[in-house]
Amino acid sequence: MAARVSGSSTRERVLDAAVATLAAQGFSRATARAVAATGGFAPGVIYYHFDDLEDLFVATAQYTSAARLTRYQERTAGVDSAVELLARLRELHQEDQAGGHVAAVQELVAAAVSSPRLAQQVREHREAWQAMAEELIRGQIRGQLFEALVPVRELAAAAVGAYLGLEMLSHLHADPVTPEALFAAALPAATMIDAFRRK
Amino acid sequence: MAARVSGSSTRERVLDAAVATLAAQGFSRATARAVAATGGFAPGVIYYHFDDLEDLFVATAQYTSAARLTRYQERTAGVDSAVELLARLRELHQEDQAGGHVAAVQELVAAAVSSPRLAQQVREHREAWQAMAEELIRGQIRGQLFEALVPVRELAAAAVGAYLGLEMLSHLHADPVTPEALFAAALPAATMIDAFRRK
Repeated sequence: MAARVSGSSTRERVLDAAVATLAAQGFSRATARAVAATGGFAPGVIYYHFDDLEDLFVATAQYTSAARLTRYQERTAGVDSAVELLARLRELHQEDQAGGHVAAVQELVAAAVSSPRLAQQVREHREAWQAMAEELIRGQIRGQLFEALVPVRELAAAAVGAYLGLEMLSHLHADPVTPEALFAAALPAATMIDAFRRK
Repeated sequence: MAARVSGSSTRERVLDAAVATLAAQGFSRATARAVAATGGFAPGVIYYHFDDLEDLFVATAQYTSAARLTRYQERTAGVDSAVELLARLRELHQEDQAGGHVAAVQELVAAAVSSPRLAQQVREHREAWQAMAEELIRGQIRGQLFEALVPVRELAAAAVGAYLGLEMLSHLHADPVTPEALFAAALPAATMIDAFRRK
């Protein structure tokens, strides 16, 4: 997998190469040499921008999470139909997978078990995703008869947990149900939410 | 954390020590020496029963998953109220945490990213847990007016994924909502499911 050069800076080229290497080869094989080979630059370039490999991976977690969060926010802003929101989330999930982001994030979360600095990154980004999930849920239940009954914080935590857990299982080829099937299964519920919304 | 000797065989003592060591020290520090120290036996005992450390951890994944699955089946068999089922699951989850099972499983799932044999174990056990989740959901919706509308397989996959993902985040101290809060938040829904059940 070749690195996607999405920005002009060398630092971004290194981060893109780290994402691609994690996705294609996994954390345990993501050496400085492997990242450099993926990106088509000398290994020394990594150490010009980052203290060490852990520093690179901490920055990679930050980079990929922030980029995807921004994209999720852009694509879901102002969407007031549950059916439309579901369609947008499905597209975003396809982008996550195609760009190697999901695979890279899984590798980094697994590695966080033995890296306190990566674990700290997971904590920080998890908060940002939790906040976004809460906002999406609030947008869907606003004005519904059952609005006050929905435990938004807990539902958002369960949704983020399910996304992470399902991707982890998918990454291990242990998912009995494809993401496509999950999105399809959620459509009747989304249709009902739209039908019950008070105009 | 001392190993709990739950069986009489030496092999089980080694497996209990592996669970306790994974839970307390993590996969990266779970050496043969560490497992032996936890269990109070010589490292050679491990190699008498297992080919190597990977073989031990594959057996540990099998052992802890099978033991917990049996316990879940025993405690949820014949429960026909959603409120009662929720209470049982809450107790089972507390047992999972107290026994170090959750922490050990998280470490093994994270390690599976770089061990094809552990990944194979995750796939096999994930199927068994998926089947149990499907049965629990079917038991709750049987006779409900909305029975035919519930996508059982997808809902079970989402539930198992959420359990795994939330535990992974909890293990990284990245859970914004405690499991207790999630169980509490699910109570009104369980009460409604019971209320709408046709007698």
